[in-house]
Amino acid sequence: MKNALAERVANTVRNIPDFPKPGIQFKDITPVLQDGSLFRSITHYFAERVVDREITKIVGIESRGFIFGAALAHELGIGLTLIRKPNKLPFEKIGVDYELEYGTDRVEMHADGVGNGERVLLIDDLLATGGTAAAACDLLNQAGAEIVEVAFLIELGFLEGRNKLEGQHVHSLWNIE
Amino acid sequence: MKNALAERVANTVRNIPDFPKPGIQFKDITPVLQDGSLFRSITHYFAERVVDREITKIVGIESRGFIFGAALAHELGIGLTLIRKPNKLPFEKIGVDYELEYGTDRVEMHADGVGNGERVLLIDDLLATGGTAAAACDLLNQAGAEIVEVAFLIELGFLEGRNKLEGQHVHSLWNIE
Repeated sequence: MKNALAERVANTVRNIPDFPKPGIQFKDITPVLQDGSLFRSITHYFAERVVDREITKIVGIESRGFIFGAALAHELGIGLTLIRKPNKLPFEKIGVDYELEYGTDRVEMHADGVGNGERVLLIDDLLATGGTAAAACDLLNQAGAEIVEVAFLIELGFLEGRNKLEGQHVHSLWNIE
Repeated sequence: MKNALAERVANTVRNIPDFPKPGIQFKDITPVLQDGSLFRSITHYFAERVVDREITKIVGIESRGFIFGAALAHELGIGLTLIRKPNKLPFEKIGVDYELEYGTDRVEMHADGVGNGERVLLIDDLLATGGTAAAACDLLNQAGAEIVEVAFLIELGFLEGRNKLEGQHVHSLWNIE
């Protein structure tokens, strides 16, 4: 475990066996959010990493990425853009389809969510197989954004989702190898 | 318009006709979130209202309530609890069903989301007919929480959703009467 904060997260996250389906051990982060001191420390941690990087927008992935993204955007005093599941965003938008183990899924972003040349930090709670994050990066590239960092609270390193994010600067607070 | 901040919000929110269905004029708040200065001012506004009220938990309603709730929790240095749509939360939970115009819906919260006697601020982006917010209040009452304030960015006052929240301290930043 690389640092004390990661250890606090690891000790607070709740493991839920067989959710949402048999064989998956779900990482329940709600105890982390409910601990105000820990939640604040996490936001400071992510903010400190990029405070000198001239980030212009935080981009959060639905829906737990909204939570860390919102706190981080507030801390840095910059805007938050949402990447959502299909048919949630009401305005003109762009989308990327991606493969799941069975079937396909899609992420969408408003066409004005990120401007050409903006420097963004993309954030979500969990990096698993990396499909959603990779699709989100495609979306941001389509919009002409520069992705400064792709940040996660937790990385399931053994799933090697990082391989789908080749060329990106990927950082996870707690990497489960 | 009661204050300058409400006016900024009103000028920034985007009206989307016929979304998600014909006849509904959707209030798209994404331009508000994307404006870092405005987003920060909104969070400060909500925080200042309750800074002396000994709030112990912010409770956000899925999913845009997570965004304002997370920033507010971070600002106040307290925890965030999530009220979600059915089957999203993985741990032991409590739930409340409520009536929609056609059919029913349900909100859920982890059983340990809010402790007995906790002083909470419940937040969401929009008060419309009030069904979801009223169900969320029922949930919090079940958990034994004291609801100090129910806060919204926008209130569609003409829908009179406030009537469903009788006995609560309801506050909206921008009330469209």
